[in-house]
Order: sequence, then C-alpha cells, then structure tokens
Amino acid sequence: MFSLNEQLGKDCFIVGEFTLCEVLLLNDVNFPWLILVPKVEGVSELHHLTESQQQQFLKESGNIAAMIESLFKPDKLNIAAIGNKVRQLHIHHIGRFESDPCWPETVWGYGKGIPYTDQQRDDTLARIRNFLSDLPDFTY
Amino acid sequence: MFSLNEQLGKDCFIVGEFTLCEVLLLNDVNFPWLILVPKVEGVSELHHLTESQQQQFLKESGNIAAMIESLFKPDKLNIAAIGNKVRQLHIHHIGRFESDPCWPETVWGYGKGIPYTDQQRDDTLARIRNFLSDLPDFTY
Repeated sequence: MFSLNEQLGKDCFIVGEFTLCEVLLLNDVNFPWLILVPKVEGVSELHHLTESQQQQFLKESGNIAAMIESLFKPDKLNIAAIGNKVRQLHIHHIGRFESDPCWPETVWGYGKGIPYTDQQRDDTLARIRNFLSDLPDFTY
Repeated sequence: MFSLNEQLGKDCFIVGEFTLCEVLLLNDVNFPWLILVPKVEGVSELHHLTESQQQQFLKESGNIAAMIESLFKPDKLNIAAIGNKVRQLHIHHIGRFESDPCWPETVWGYGKGIPYTDQQRDDTLARIRNFLSDLPDFTY
C-alpha cells in the first residue's frame, strides 16, 4: 500500500530501509541530511503511528542520529517532523556545523542547496550503508 | 542538579511537569507552541538520553501532541529538536495553521512573536493544565 511521496523521491537518494522506515539522503552536499519515512500509508503525524511503530521509530531514529554523529562529527543534530508542504510523514535528521551555510539558523527554505556530484553521492551512500549494515534490520 | 536554561525561562511560561520533562509554553500568541525540556543535566541530543528516558520522552511527547491537536485543532503539528542556539535539550511541539503568520514555512527566526496578554496567558495555561491533569504523571 505504501508508496514514497513523489517530491521526496525527487529530492533524495534512497539509502536503504529499516523495518519501519525508508532511509533517504537529501541531495544537498552542504549537510549530512537524512530523512526517515515510515512505510505506513496515510499517516502525517508521529503520534498517529501505533505504539509499536513509535517504539520502532525511536530505535531507527536513534540509529540514524548515532550514524551521523559517528561518521560526520557534527556540532549539533537537528531532528524534526515538519511536513507543512509534504504531508507524508517524514522526519529530518540533519548534522549541523558551525561552519555550514545557515548556522545557527534552521535549514528549511534556505534555498542554497548544492547537489552532490556522482562521485560524492556514491562515496557518501557507501559510507552510510557500510555503517548501517552492522544493524540487523537495515537492508539496501 | 537540573536547572532550566535561562533563555528558555525568559521566553516561556511554565505549564507544569511530567516525570521526565518540564512543560513550557512559548510566549507567542500566534501559535500553541509547547516545549518539553527533559530534566536531565548536560544532555543536548535526544539519543543521548538513556533508553528508558527516551521511552518516557516518547510518551510525554505524544501526550503533548494529542493535547495540541485536541484543544487547538491545528492543520499540522511541527515537532523538532534544534538547539543550535540553546544547547539544553528542548523539543518544540507547535500547532501550525494554514492561517498562521509563517505558513507553510517553519517558525524559527520569523521574528514576529506577539506576547500573550495576562488574560490570554491565564486562559491558555488553564485550558492546557486542565487537559493534562487527566494524565497520571502531570503536575503543576
């Protein structure tokens, strides 16, 4: 029943998936910007997931946060469910740096995204998948 | 050991507390904007809480989301841990409306907050506390 929102599919690369969520990488080389999308049709708020889905989300979100921290050493993580424009529930996990182009403001709508080169994309996806592959429920 | 960050204390009214978190209301009448602050000293990332604290956070966050939904009927919830400026872990829970002053953009840094009048503050705090008082672990 679930299908990924078209806009998210256009803006992101697919990294792989966990039990609950698809794992996406936003195509902006300025940030390690991962997006988790629960594979549940028609849900737009976190607390509308079932209790067991919320438990699973918590685990997957923590794993993505730990991955960003470990691989990219950001100064701060920003984690957010906004969804004012794209209603399909998706949760941003962004590594922020004091040197990044919109620090210390938030990243939404800053409008200066820089797409990955093919090489950067391949390298980044490989690093992320390599890290996540140690988790029992990650596949790609 | 825990003490509320000074800036948060200045910008918000204290609604009450759950087992894990203090519950704050941001002093901006444009939005029902609640902030949860885990009463844990020195933590700035959600996934650095212990597993049981994260479980408790999930429950309290869901209760705040359900309260905003029930009392204020927003078009969308925005839930976010940002913390680029204030490092003490605090998680925004904001009811958004298609009619609000920055829809559909995010609310951070929009710079047009309107403080509550005393009457509005008292009414809003009373409504929120009345709703949350049905939960076994809320006190004020």
